[in-house]
Amino acid sequence: MVTLDTDQKNVVIEGLIIAREWEALVTILRKMPVVEVVEVLRDLEQANLIEVLNLFSPEEQGYIVSDFDLEMQVDLFEHLGPRNFSRIFVHMASELRADLYQELDRDEQLNLLPYLDKKTRENVIRLSSYDPETAGGIMSTDFATIMGDMTAAQAIEKVRSDAPSKKMIYYVYVVDDDMKLHGFTTLKDLIMAEPGTSIWDIVYKDFAWAEVDEDRESVAVKIEKYDLVAIPVINKYGQLAGIVRHDDALEVIQAEQTEDMEKFMGIVPDEDGLDYPETSVFSHFRKRITWVASLAIIGVISGMIIHRYEEAMSVLIILALYMPMVADSGGNVGSQSATVVIRALALGQITLKNWLMILFKEARIALLLSVVLGLIAFGKILFLSWETDVPDQYSLFFIAFGISLALSLQVISATLIGASLPLIVKRLGGDPAVAASPAITTMVDITGLLIYFGIAVVLFF
Amino acid sequence: MVTLDTDQKNVVIEGLIIAREWEALVTILRKMPVVEVVEVLRDLEQANLIEVLNLFSPEEQGYIVSDFDLEMQVDLFEHLGPRNFSRIFVHMASELRADLYQELDRDEQLNLLPYLDKKTRENVIRLSSYDPETAGGIMSTDFATIMGDMTAAQAIEKVRSDAPSKKMIYYVYVVDDDMKLHGFTTLKDLIMAEPGTSIWDIVYKDFAWAEVDEDRESVAVKIEKYDLVAIPVINKYGQLAGIVRHDDALEVIQAEQTEDMEKFMGIVPDEDGLDYPETSVFSHFRKRITWVASLAIIGVISGMIIHRYEEAMSVLIILALYMPMVADSGGNVGSQSATVVIRALALGQITLKNWLMILFKEARIALLLSVVLGLIAFGKILFLSWETDVPDQYSLFFIAFGISLALSLQVISATLIGASLPLIVKRLGGDPAVAASPAITTMVDITGLLIYFGIAVVLFF
Repeated sequence: MVTLDTDQKNVVIEGLIIAREWEALVTILRKMPVVEVVEVLRDLEQANLIEVLNLFSPEEQGYIVSDFDLEMQVDLFEHLGPRNFSRIFVHMASELRADLYQELDRDEQLNLLPYLDKKTRENVIRLSSYDPETAGGIMSTDFATIMGDMTAAQAIEKVRSDAPSKKMIYYVYVVDDDMKLHGFTTLKDLIMAEPGTSIWDIVYKDFAWAEVDEDRESVAVKIEKYDLVAIPVINKYGQLAGIVRHDDALEVIQAEQTEDMEKFMGIVPDEDGLDYPETSVFSHFRKRITWVASLAIIGVISGMIIHRYEEAMSVLIILALYMPMVADSGGNVGSQSATVVIRALALGQITLKNWLMILFKEARIALLLSVVLGLIAFGKILFLSWETDVPDQYSLFFIAFGISLALSLQVISATLIGASLPLIVKRLGGDPAVAASPAITTMVDITGLLIYFGIAVVLFF
Repeated sequence: MVTLDTDQKNVVIEGLIIAREWEALVTILRKMPVVEVVEVLRDLEQANLIEVLNLFSPEEQGYIVSDFDLEMQVDLFEHLGPRNFSRIFVHMASELRADLYQELDRDEQLNLLPYLDKKTRENVIRLSSYDPETAGGIMSTDFATIMGDMTAAQAIEKVRSDAPSKKMIYYVYVVDDDMKLHGFTTLKDLIMAEPGTSIWDIVYKDFAWAEVDEDRESVAVKIEKYDLVAIPVINKYGQLAGIVRHDDALEVIQAEQTEDMEKFMGIVPDEDGLDYPETSVFSHFRKRITWVASLAIIGVISGMIIHRYEEAMSVLIILALYMPMVADSGGNVGSQSATVVIRALALGQITLKNWLMILFKEARIALLLSVVLGLIAFGKILFLSWETDVPDQYSLFFIAFGISLALSLQVISATLIGASLPLIVKRLGGDPAVAASPAITTMVDITGLLIYFGIAVVLFF
């Protein structure tokens, strides 16, 4: 087990930092997981950070700096200058190196390039050229390859001899002279096989792969579906261009989830998910205003319906009082059913083909909801309005019945609209998550008002 | 590359099924990823399924059946009977076997147990005893162990000799005679090391681990933070009890995200995330009614406020017409700011300590939103109500100004309430996601009405 617990370890580390005992500190850091090393280094002053980093080997520095966030990497680049930084840069993980390169401005890029060896330079430029939303944009080129005509023992030797520390070697890709991908085998299969076994006997030829320009979410879904440690990415010539690892898939899924939740609340999402503290007030504003302003404008339709029944309300003011209640209930149940359907679509539990089953199920759920909410509404009206003046020709009971009936119908229609909208958006090729809660609220406001005043006119006038 | 594309493959497979060419079918299936094999088998009739399964070895059957969903596993158990099924059962992945065991009823469990060898029986009973929400509930016991005093070559030999196909051997755990966990090493390090290297020289002693009764979400977060293929789970004696793999972590994170989104829409979540088609209409209803019914009841407060201003509205009916508009705008912007804050909290971008920064930022965003939405409201009122009868002592311009002012103030207050509520819930030790969209809508309805009628009374009466 761990010799020191976390608190003790932190006390020791803080002590060493105060005493500026950098060599002892590095001895301790070397034994720690890299993400924890970064947590310690993050809090150091720039000058101390550089002093500590210099005590690590260039490979270790590359490994550690890969785990810095982009801002820290850029800071370090600016402090060290292109020449010194290039020594770390060449040892960074390929996909993170490319991300950093894209973050630098044009001048900084041009200053850095001359210090890189040809292979690194070409690799960085190539990886930076892909759209960050695609497999190419998140893939790494740190993978291991073997040839199909090797034996298991030769393959292990090949992997051993050309696998520097950053490479993922749990899956080993079988390619030909032309880098065309023919399959993969796992390090486990290589170890378990008799040394003389031919690779062709243990290769998986039928396997999941992604294309360079494939959407990153679809890549993440494949990694999840096939429980992969990594998925190979091929270019249009069938050549192995890179791999996307399971931890990258997890990040993509997190970012997409943020995006879905934002879309659902009518917030315009960023490609990398929103970083709250890093985003400016104006950008936050811009991301939110688009939808709410559009909805406010679409709200003109509700306004026109309400105006049409101005007369009715001036005769029966109680109608005006319960208008918001009916609208709100519709918004709530509509958003609920939309959430459930969007999530079930995203997780692949249902597909468009199931639309009839979904609507039938939602209709039955809606019926139950409408009964309970209708009864609550009936009780509320009697409780709140027993003192209200109602014109002589009406009875409060009858009015309460009419309003509750309208609410029940509104609950049913809103539930069905909430469930249908994501399906319709998906059918039209869009992302179901844009069938957002504010959009549904606005839409069921309109249907709700029509139902409400429709029933009022039929029953009371 | 793959010899047949997906469509061609499907045509061949369908043809073989129709021709009942089971042996040829199995030859093809053997080369396919197991998740695709399951997709094919899922559509077979029970009798054919059993015939096809029998052509696989017991190990292969265990591997395939592990990937079935629970319902299919139970069906198969019931068709094969405990004796025949036990041959597959012993070869299933340990954690999935335990899940299935828990799904069986008491009699079925008792019928199955006698056919299991002692080791499997004890393993199943032990793994079934953990709470499914904890590390113990999702861990697998299919891991590889070595002793610290071995050499790299001996360790590889040990892993080779006792690793059946289902074991995860990319991480190898270093234990003593008492199964106490001392660290881990990776298969990669073992391969890269000189054969004579002592394990003590390449072991990671400072590593991330989970406790058996630790919450599964916290386990998933560790796997993500440390980019692990698997995390060891230890019991209170420091013994290695199991491992949780990266693919399980991904499932947990997906389930927790569904839970968050459901909570946010006021839907009572399940422990495993909702499976839409599998959940009955009544369960769906129960999960949704709790919140909407509570909110309908809390809505009595809005009703009372509205009633207090009944007089005002009967004099100035236009006030009644714009009441829903003001309420809706508040609900929209409040839900937006709550979403952004909840998500930023969940991703660790902000913590409670940042509350002042958050509120200050939201206040500035709210100011921008209020100006734009206020202007839209002003324009809407002039456009919609130019024909409306307004009592002589009022001008439409002045009324439109008053209503827009109320809407702007409502936007500011709703944004701040939306941002504060998740922070307050978190401060009180709850899950910020319960500061749900319907809850916020209901709450800002109340403040909105107070602001609306407050301003109306001051300006117009």
